[in-house]
Amino acid sequence: MTTQSLGIIMNGVTGRMGMNQHLIRSILAIRDQGGVTLSNGDRVMPDPILVGRNADKLKRLAETHNVTRWTTDLEEALSNQDDRIFFDAASTQLRCDLLRKAIKAGKHVYCEKPIAENLADALNIARTAEKAGVKNGAVQDKLWLPGLLKLQQLNDTGFFGRILSVNLDFGYWVFEGDTVPAQRPSWNYRKEDGGGMILDMMCHWRYVIDNLFGKPTSLVCLGKTHIPERWDENGTAYKATADDACYATVELDNDAVVHIKSSWNTRVRRDDLVTFHVDGTRGSAVAGLTDCHIQPREATPKPVWNPDQKQTLDFFGDWQKVPERESNDNAFKRQWEMFIRHVVEDAPFRWTLREAAKGVQFAELALQSSAERRWLDVPELED
Amino acid sequence: MTTQSLGIIMNGVTGRMGMNQHLIRSILAIRDQGGVTLSNGDRVMPDPILVGRNADKLKRLAETHNVTRWTTDLEEALSNQDDRIFFDAASTQLRCDLLRKAIKAGKHVYCEKPIAENLADALNIARTAEKAGVKNGAVQDKLWLPGLLKLQQLNDTGFFGRILSVNLDFGYWVFEGDTVPAQRPSWNYRKEDGGGMILDMMCHWRYVIDNLFGKPTSLVCLGKTHIPERWDENGTAYKATADDACYATVELDNDAVVHIKSSWNTRVRRDDLVTFHVDGTRGSAVAGLTDCHIQPREATPKPVWNPDQKQTLDFFGDWQKVPERESNDNAFKRQWEMFIRHVVEDAPFRWTLREAAKGVQFAELALQSSAERRWLDVPELED
Amino acid sequence: MTTQSLGIIMNGVTGRMGMNQHLIRSILAIRDQGGVTLSNGDRVMPDPILVGRNADKLKRLAETHNVTRWTTDLEEALSNQDDRIFFDAASTQLRCDLLRKAIKAGKHVYCEKPIAENLADALNIARTAEKAGVKNGAVQDKLWLPGLLKLQQLNDTGFFGRILSVNLDFGYWVFEGDTVPAQRPSWNYRKEDGGGMILDMMCHWRYVIDNLFGKPTSLVCLGKTHIPERWDENGTAYKATADDACYATVELDNDAVVHIKSSWNTRVRRDDLVTFHVDGTRGSAVAGLTDCHIQPREATPKPVWNPDQKQTLDFFGDWQKVPERESNDNAFKRQWEMFIRHVVEDAPFRWTLREAAKGVQFAELALQSSAERRWLDVPELED
Amino acid sequence: MTTQSLGIIMNGVTGRMGMNQHLIRSILAIRDQGGVTLSNGDRVMPDPILVGRNADKLKRLAETHNVTRWTTDLEEALSNQDDRIFFDAASTQLRCDLLRKAIKAGKHVYCEKPIAENLADALNIARTAEKAGVKNGAVQDKLWLPGLLKLQQLNDTGFFGRILSVNLDFGYWVFEGDTVPAQRPSWNYRKEDGGGMILDMMCHWRYVIDNLFGKPTSLVCLGKTHIPERWDENGTAYKATADDACYATVELDNDAVVHIKSSWNTRVRRDDLVTFHVDGTRGSAVAGLTDCHIQPREATPKPVWNPDQKQTLDFFGDWQKVPERESNDNAFKRQWEMFIRHVVEDAPFRWTLREAAKGVQFAELALQSSAERRWLDVPELED
Repeated sequence: MTTQSLGIIMNGVTGRMGMNQHLIRSILAIRDQGGVTLSNGDRVMPDPILVGRNADKLKRLAETHNVTRWTTDLEEALSNQDDRIFFDAASTQLRCDLLRKAIKAGKHVYCEKPIAENLADALNIARTAEKAGVKNGAVQDKLWLPGLLKLQQLNDTGFFGRILSVNLDFGYWVFEGDTVPAQRPSWNYRKEDGGGMILDMMCHWRYVIDNLFGKPTSLVCLGKTHIPERWDENGTAYKATADDACYATVELDNDAVVHIKSSWNTRVRRDDLVTFHVDGTRGSAVAGLTDCHIQPREATPKPVWNPDQKQTLDFFGDWQKVPERESNDNAFKRQWEMFIRHVVEDAPFRWTLREAAKGVQFAELALQSSAERRWLDVPELED
Repeated sequence: MTTQSLGIIMNGVTGRMGMNQHLIRSILAIRDQGGVTLSNGDRVMPDPILVGRNADKLKRLAETHNVTRWTTDLEEALSNQDDRIFFDAASTQLRCDLLRKAIKAGKHVYCEKPIAENLADALNIARTAEKAGVKNGAVQDKLWLPGLLKLQQLNDTGFFGRILSVNLDFGYWVFEGDTVPAQRPSWNYRKEDGGGMILDMMCHWRYVIDNLFGKPTSLVCLGKTHIPERWDENGTAYKATADDACYATVELDNDAVVHIKSSWNTRVRRDDLVTFHVDGTRGSAVAGLTDCHIQPREATPKPVWNPDQKQTLDFFGDWQKVPERESNDNAFKRQWEMFIRHVVEDAPFRWTLREAAKGVQFAELALQSSAERRWLDVPELED
Repeated sequence: MTTQSLGIIMNGVTGRMGMNQHLIRSILAIRDQGGVTLSNGDRVMPDPILVGRNADKLKRLAETHNVTRWTTDLEEALSNQDDRIFFDAASTQLRCDLLRKAIKAGKHVYCEKPIAENLADALNIARTAEKAGVKNGAVQDKLWLPGLLKLQQLNDTGFFGRILSVNLDFGYWVFEGDTVPAQRPSWNYRKEDGGGMILDMMCHWRYVIDNLFGKPTSLVCLGKTHIPERWDENGTAYKATADDACYATVELDNDAVVHIKSSWNTRVRRDDLVTFHVDGTRGSAVAGLTDCHIQPREATPKPVWNPDQKQTLDFFGDWQKVPERESNDNAFKRQWEMFIRHVVEDAPFRWTLREAAKGVQFAELALQSSAERRWLDVPELED
Repeated sequence: MTTQSLGIIMNGVTGRMGMNQHLIRSILAIRDQGGVTLSNGDRVMPDPILVGRNADKLKRLAETHNVTRWTTDLEEALSNQDDRIFFDAASTQLRCDLLRKAIKAGKHVYCEKPIAENLADALNIARTAEKAGVKNGAVQDKLWLPGLLKLQQLNDTGFFGRILSVNLDFGYWVFEGDTVPAQRPSWNYRKEDGGGMILDMMCHWRYVIDNLFGKPTSLVCLGKTHIPERWDENGTAYKATADDACYATVELDNDAVVHIKSSWNTRVRRDDLVTFHVDGTRGSAVAGLTDCHIQPREATPKPVWNPDQKQTLDFFGDWQKVPERESNDNAFKRQWEMFIRHVVEDAPFRWTLREAAKGVQFAELALQSSAERRWLDVPELED
């Protein structure tokens, strides 16, 4: 049983998401647990080098977490043959260029979503990686949330029978910022800054649908800016130009329907900030981020529509919570471990750049559907 | 204080709905309570005459409930000047012809929904009544359900501020009929017999929207037959040809959105068989058939999206139930009392045949939208 | 739609069981509901004639319940061609002879269990009925108890996957009779009077197993007389000579095991007086007489054996009650309606005398296994 | 009041069970509490020396827990006269040889169960110890679980009157390992690796029966492999060759019956992972690992068998929980303290190697009964 080292160039991990989810809770957590175990029992120990523009920040971050290597010189980092993976969590605008450089330098590449600002760029960078023959992937963290893992397991055991429909209800009340400060950054509500609900969440819903429910074939989506004026981080009023809610209906190749509401203007009366209500012939489930409740057909009550009388059934009590049967590891870390095994021992890994491009496509189509007020087909990606 | 008698011709009350809701729980209940009180304190005592084709049934029904008058001769009934109202709860196919005869005979008319089989007929009969100058109305019972009355009251007090969106979630699991017998008649699932979710519920949603949320300007709707085979009352398999679920998005003139899911193929995890979740700038409410829960902006929690951690907020506990402050009278009876006052003392009554024609229009548009897969405008009714 | 009359000779319905379950709650209840509906919509109205030895009792019973016909002359009754069914609920000792007479008279026959005192007689009377070509059946009422109907439905939908084992736990504390009077008759505890747990319950378990779990291929059974002295209806001590508990293990042809404990000497700490705990690959159920709780594999908790720590799982809370979805008709009446349809329109009916003979066989084998202290095969019945 | 030191050679405590239960929670816990108190108030302080084959592991374990002595040389350890007790928790295969060496060296011996691979060896080593006149014992930890201690106390006070029967229900659902990883090691399900329910649990049930309920005189047992395919620690499918459930009936010399179901394929609907339901003439108790509920005859309800009506008694509410009246010390530690007093001041200690040999005998007989499908007597052990 041997342990090999694996150099990983990490770009953009001084930001909140990159630092917390990718550096600390993924790569350093893997280091602290003694590396990733391969199928033959050998171990791979990640050896990160932090890359960024701000030397001070990098130095402080590295020291705080006992990371020995950091640099502001990306070219030099890319030239080191021992660093086999390039990871990017910096801005979306620069992502494709950085990935292209890394691929050219022979690196396997892994990055945050969205992988590009538009479908053409996304598909282009996916093709570049494929032609170069490097391993590639993009973050699809929601798939490893405990609630969605439970849905996946229900799927695997055939609990649902045939899936008929999914009701996806996402969102909560984001304060306008006048009396109660907003709990999300103001750029999220400005189209010109890349904000908007459709852009933010539709790429997530795409891979959730792809992995759990079926292949989307067409969609209709309506974006709305329900709250046209908000107050920013400084308490200054600004015009909200991006959609803050969207209402969509998606058809799948298996004839199931995904009915979606995503809104930052709704007060939550459901199990969690997002719920996936899946109805199948043999049973239904409602999953949140963590928990999942099920109702098999054998335990399905038989309500009768009689508005004259107050309902006597308890429509929450007749569901059963899926028990916790596995420890829940961080979702980002789980995908990192899979990517590392993919790189080192060619383990299967389906969450490639090409898959991520589908998320970009989905968001683009949703925006177009909303603008043109019509149903759109979801075409296959070109090769 | 005087009491006057008001003759009412009731056609088609040997059927379940007509007998229970209109004869027994409305007209006879009004009789038993001593009539309808007018604004001047006088009383109006309804004096029904039952009309139908089956003399035996009519006789038995009349005797059971101490109704002195019944007949199989509609013409004769219409010729009696003391019977000022004609009511119809028989089949939709014959409705327009019957109403036309009654209008011609100078009767005020009131009837069950839908008022006609298509928009042209519906509009036609509304115009006929208007031209004849008779009072007219159609049943819109859901408006007087305790849950919707509470919504109406919240509306009246300005609780919502500006309404942003409504999530309308209707339905429950209707058993296929193979192992557990179905709890709805099989014709509901056959298009050729007038079945289907869109036809059944869209006319209801129209008047609920009109009265509570705003004027619909456009809609997109997708009907689906999720369960293609069902078993009928005799346990015989049959092909389900009508839509058993529909997914719609409706835009209102006040820029609010109503997002609708109606399904007989869903297992219920919400407060009631139908819930109306209304989000407004100042507060939100979730109403079922009976109860209604509210959350004003002052009590709105501030959740943060952090999928890493199990949610600690209780998204049900932070809503408050609207207390019962009025006795809940039968919804059908309440509308009857209003129509009687409308006829006798010209009290306001907005639920006319013209309003009911809008329900027929809405269902027609929804079916067309689903068939043609596109958004459709909801035009004003022609005069 | 016509209604035909069906004469039924009812013998031995002055006894508690015959009177309550067969006369009042079955035949008279069917009469009061307007008869049995056939598949073509026609109706069959049962017309009972009560037969017995005590004219007084018969007369009183007939008058109390508006039964017009009764007689003490069985021969005469059998000679009436309009009485097509002979039913017997009198003593086991006389049953075979009575059935034989009735069959000879061309009657269809139906009776209480056990159908005979031993397998040879049971098989003989079954053969007699088969050769004569008359319809025949015996009571297997437990199958229509609400709890077992729920098990049947779980079976039908494939809820269990492959059934692995059934734990059948029957019984309760029957008081000895010295301080607290016994709640069962004393003859139950005397072998010489036909008492004993094995004789009483094993024929029931046989048809439950046959219908719900699989075909028994071998069994081992141990009968015990745990309480050797009891006090009878008069407070007199007597020697209990019959087994008052039995412990059995049964193998089925599908390799499942039914583990049985039946005892009148146990204090109940379970859902009901009898519970059937069925474990299958896909789910488990625990049914009592009325209710049934299920746990599908998707909701199965993952306990770890750690005697050092107090258990934190709630092993009752993680089961879900099967909802009531159908009105529960009397079990005896349901089987009567099926037998009547079997007689009149040849509807399927599998609970024949031959099936009932298997119950006699099972009890005999269990007694033999206990006496000889060995496993015994359960052979096919000879033709 | 003096304190004497007692040297204890501990072999095989680098394994999970030996380390946790015997070293840390027993011997070191005794050391930390200031030793074992004798009847005269003096104290005995255990002074362990760890013995094993892996020097690294021993060193680390010793250092972690401040144990000063460890060695890989067993012979040397045995030659030290101050070490009076030899304890073994290593592999069953080597146990007898090690014990024999220790006995030869004049040590008192104590060990884990099973004490040998077969009855002949077990009896042989017991005789060897007896002839040599050394104190000897084997672990029977379940006896000191809080639930069983409560049963013992009920026994001591005569609560049960005469014990009639015991229903022993053990087990839970061990996942197959395909979707949910199994919570027990795969060797448990392979006969060739020493797995199997009968081997694992029957020796436990023997000493529980011996100590609490009576002397077993005969048994019948049926082992089954309900789940023939499982997935191991690496997710690889393997053939399950050992029995994963067993069904047994045991007769005791006091005419009581112990009815046993032990299964890794059952979903738990009872108080705990194992329950002992004891029915006696004066009262009954149901004990789990921790808790125990009782029902004396004075509080026994009088249910009547009437399947027609839904049961109204609550068969859980009419039991009373035995209150916690003593702190629950670790079961292993309690037996260690007793053995130390047995060695030092000849206090009574009945859990000898000979007693442990009975457990080996019981498992052997159960396997033989299952293979030969017959009842077997449980003979006295030869001297």
